[in-house]
Amino acid sequence: MSTRVRSSSRSHRAAAPEAGQVTTGPIYRSRKTYTEVTHRNTDGTSTVLRIPQRSVDLTTGGQFPLYDTSGIYTEDDPQLDLAAGLARTHDGWERPAAAPASAEHPELRVQTQLAWARAGVVTPEMTFIAHREGFTPEFVRDEVAAGRAVICANHRHPEIEPMIIGRAFAVKINANMGNSAVTSSIAEEVEKMVWATRWGADTIMDLSTGSDIHETREWIIRNSPVPVGTVPIYEALEKVKGDPMALTWEIYRDTVIEQCEQGVDYMTVHAGVLLRYVPLAAPRVTGIVSRGGSIMAAWCLKEHRESFLYTHFEELCDILARYDVTFSLGDGLRPGSIADANDEAQLAELRTLGELTRIARSRGVQVMIEGPGHVPMHKIPQNVEWEEEWCDGAPFYTLGPLATDIAPGYDHITSAIGAAIIGQAGTAMLCYVTPKEHLGLPNRDDVKTGVITYKIAAHAADLAKGHPRAQERDDALSTARFEFRWHDQFALALDPDTALDFHDETLPAEPAKTAHFCSMCGPKFCSMRISQDVRDYAEEHGLTSVEAIEAGMAEKSQEFTEAGDRVYLPITAT
Amino acid sequence: MSTRVRSSSRSHRAAAPEAGQVTTGPIYRSRKTYTEVTHRNTDGTSTVLRIPQRSVDLTTGGQFPLYDTSGIYTEDDPQLDLAAGLARTHDGWERPAAAPASAEHPELRVQTQLAWARAGVVTPEMTFIAHREGFTPEFVRDEVAAGRAVICANHRHPEIEPMIIGRAFAVKINANMGNSAVTSSIAEEVEKMVWATRWGADTIMDLSTGSDIHETREWIIRNSPVPVGTVPIYEALEKVKGDPMALTWEIYRDTVIEQCEQGVDYMTVHAGVLLRYVPLAAPRVTGIVSRGGSIMAAWCLKEHRESFLYTHFEELCDILARYDVTFSLGDGLRPGSIADANDEAQLAELRTLGELTRIARSRGVQVMIEGPGHVPMHKIPQNVEWEEEWCDGAPFYTLGPLATDIAPGYDHITSAIGAAIIGQAGTAMLCYVTPKEHLGLPNRDDVKTGVITYKIAAHAADLAKGHPRAQERDDALSTARFEFRWHDQFALALDPDTALDFHDETLPAEPAKTAHFCSMCGPKFCSMRISQDVRDYAEEHGLTSVEAIEAGMAEKSQEFTEAGDRVYLPITAT
Repeated sequence: MSTRVRSSSRSHRAAAPEAGQVTTGPIYRSRKTYTEVTHRNTDGTSTVLRIPQRSVDLTTGGQFPLYDTSGIYTEDDPQLDLAAGLARTHDGWERPAAAPASAEHPELRVQTQLAWARAGVVTPEMTFIAHREGFTPEFVRDEVAAGRAVICANHRHPEIEPMIIGRAFAVKINANMGNSAVTSSIAEEVEKMVWATRWGADTIMDLSTGSDIHETREWIIRNSPVPVGTVPIYEALEKVKGDPMALTWEIYRDTVIEQCEQGVDYMTVHAGVLLRYVPLAAPRVTGIVSRGGSIMAAWCLKEHRESFLYTHFEELCDILARYDVTFSLGDGLRPGSIADANDEAQLAELRTLGELTRIARSRGVQVMIEGPGHVPMHKIPQNVEWEEEWCDGAPFYTLGPLATDIAPGYDHITSAIGAAIIGQAGTAMLCYVTPKEHLGLPNRDDVKTGVITYKIAAHAADLAKGHPRAQERDDALSTARFEFRWHDQFALALDPDTALDFHDETLPAEPAKTAHFCSMCGPKFCSMRISQDVRDYAEEHGLTSVEAIEAGMAEKSQEFTEAGDRVYLPITAT
Repeated sequence: MSTRVRSSSRSHRAAAPEAGQVTTGPIYRSRKTYTEVTHRNTDGTSTVLRIPQRSVDLTTGGQFPLYDTSGIYTEDDPQLDLAAGLARTHDGWERPAAAPASAEHPELRVQTQLAWARAGVVTPEMTFIAHREGFTPEFVRDEVAAGRAVICANHRHPEIEPMIIGRAFAVKINANMGNSAVTSSIAEEVEKMVWATRWGADTIMDLSTGSDIHETREWIIRNSPVPVGTVPIYEALEKVKGDPMALTWEIYRDTVIEQCEQGVDYMTVHAGVLLRYVPLAAPRVTGIVSRGGSIMAAWCLKEHRESFLYTHFEELCDILARYDVTFSLGDGLRPGSIADANDEAQLAELRTLGELTRIARSRGVQVMIEGPGHVPMHKIPQNVEWEEEWCDGAPFYTLGPLATDIAPGYDHITSAIGAAIIGQAGTAMLCYVTPKEHLGLPNRDDVKTGVITYKIAAHAADLAKGHPRAQERDDALSTARFEFRWHDQFALALDPDTALDFHDETLPAEPAKTAHFCSMCGPKFCSMRISQDVRDYAEEHGLTSVEAIEAGMAEKSQEFTEAGDRVYLPITAT
């Protein structure tokens, strides 16, 4: 793969880069800025952390800061070397001494965010996250200690900007990518990673299943500013040439260790697909749709014994604990259709994931739980209730869910409906779905559509949950809209480029972007302008409170009555 | 405008027609079919009604019938004459004698679906609708009599296929179109109407504001298979050259009569924007965003008296009653931003709409109520509760609502989230929002995107409400998906053309459409295939019920234990 880099910093629109390059440069009318924060280490020394943000330059003179996941790629002139990867920022951070994994296992001493949090330590990652999201470091620590939030940060992945996944925090989104047996190259996948984080992906998962899995992942991890997740069983399956029957614990374990060493931050493990649950999927409309779930189901059935992921789960915990890799306990039996939602197969597995959560946590490993799938709206909130109850409040990480099956080609939308609802109900991270779901592999445009759609769902959920910072952005954008500050409206949008393109389709001239009208009503009449008149009128007449309005109106009403007018004129119908 | 027609019946994909033509021909692997139903008239005679549907030809040999709004345009070889318009089907239907408007006004005798329903009459329209939706004609009649549902069918619009809007029925969607001062032609608008109904629009609204309003509407009405709505104040404003101050009751009334005569089926009337409510919008972030609302607010402020829509409301009722035109009482003070949702201006107006609903119904006029706007998810269901309580259960007809303000360019999605939720809560019709909302006027592609997105929201709501027929389609599509019947999956989709295109991007060859794999996992491994193995296994071993599975597993578990295996191997961590 080439390591050349094309900078588009002078252009506000991100054009597709040439082969082997990635997209760089600031987002429309924005600058990448960093706030320096001093973290106090346990040994009394301190470390300066640089918290990233996208600062929108408003036409009114101020700046509006936005949460930003895009790394240095959106700097003005980023110094990139894709072959070497990003700077290893965390290498300079303190890694406190090992702490007891848990009260149950004081003999296990590990270096994980969970163990440190339980020991009362605020890590540099926690401080970073606290400033990034607007909470105190102690609150972040307490949520991690309780297992209600996870910080996915493998010790071997020092390039990332720390982030947190938990119901008390902003809802996060994940973007899947990865080459497959049928299509795509390493360069394309690296660009997809850069592209997805440019638009707001909080984590990415490399789901490669074709050739060059290890190398593809290496390029992605070394260059990713966000945590990277994988499903190790995919690579294990490639090692045995796609035959589930040839899988063994040893092959799987070695694959996990290889990926831990490489810096994967969280791993999907379908350890809840138990032999006795497999036949529960038989009466379903769509059987088992999870790839990992069906691999394990096939293995269990043919071997006639319990899944090695389940029988070796404690050993697996202790491998992950060594690197502080987070479990994403996979829902291998998730429903793949509306008909199968909330069925016994799904629920049986979820109960087992709760059991595994307790084992992992007792060994100091952070855990999140994956969720459905396809679920009609009225059955969605119940999923969060079950998950929180059975899995002791572990962060929920859901795929959609799709609220109907009937719209292939639009499953980013069918699933955004479900994602927003499940986010409102408490889900901590939403795995995006692209328009190509069920039909093909997403290209670069699909990745962007998926990310923006999921940023919408996550933000809608943040608003509904009352996240302290969420509504500020809506208010800033709507104020800009009301005041005809078109440039600010675009810059504050999730996707300024598309907003600008759509506006310019009808009114391309530059003056239209400062005009006090738009293409909907034309120049002669504008409801926004009339609203300004209303405001002026209210101010002129002192009608600035409900009381004043009622008093003023009573007077006016009297005039009205005296004038002999009537509200209802009786009319005889014909 | 030209009257030539291009038939695309041999092609399964609808290409853009040439100028002056409209899109025709069947949808992918479907045929337009009609079921004949005999309606018994009040005079003892009977009328044969032809209920339309889209019949999907399944590869398994059967047909799957779908609700269809596209009129004759999707027939194999439709005989069209756009200048003459569609056949005047209803002209042959009985129009029963006038009935008392209500118990309060027995002296007003009118010919509306509401008055007939109250008098116990089942009209041809009710029979038609009952068979179209799967209810009894008496149930349809009772819902209309109670005012919980409306049948928008102007006596002067005999071309339409009757449909019903009410919370007990399938959630409907409306598509807006119309030329403006800035852009678009009559021919484009007629094609947008045909195009929108092809993809499932249940009603369309002509919101033209530019020149040729009357002629544009004539072409649309004469050729529309679905009810047509308007906002008469728009045309009235054009008549006074865009100056709200020059508006009078007389100009407005004459415009309404002209539109009633022409065949408009429902009209948005912003009669709830009272003088005393206008200043309530002053403290808002985005003031008054409804065009009609701001026109009336401007008029009230400058005139210093009550809106003529309110003072002449009874006269207006009696005009609409003569034609059986349905009121869509407009929410002129709807919130235009998250910050303004559920505020006093919005609620004050909604209470007044309730008062107007009672007046209209007492005079025999059918009523629906328009709703917001921009509302965060947690404030959405309350809107339906208020509306139903204050407006005596009149059908709610909402614009979105948008669940966040921050995604211009994607407001079909921000609003689909809100639309699905408000539909689940009881909203009867959803007004679509296209990707161009806030930015420009929708083109043909935007219209389709808006319609499909809203069909998704409406269907998700139908599933959540438990509409008797809703899940059948999901199950049929998911079964086709599970059985690798790609052609059937596409044909049952809301948009077969896009599903097919996306599939073909990765695997264009025809054999891939019968192959038992897809591009996601490639040919070597397929979770769907493994699911079939699971099913075969369960059947072979008699594990076809939960009891049998448990019994079978107990046996297996014993074997497992005897083999000396253990679930958890204690491992010492390092």
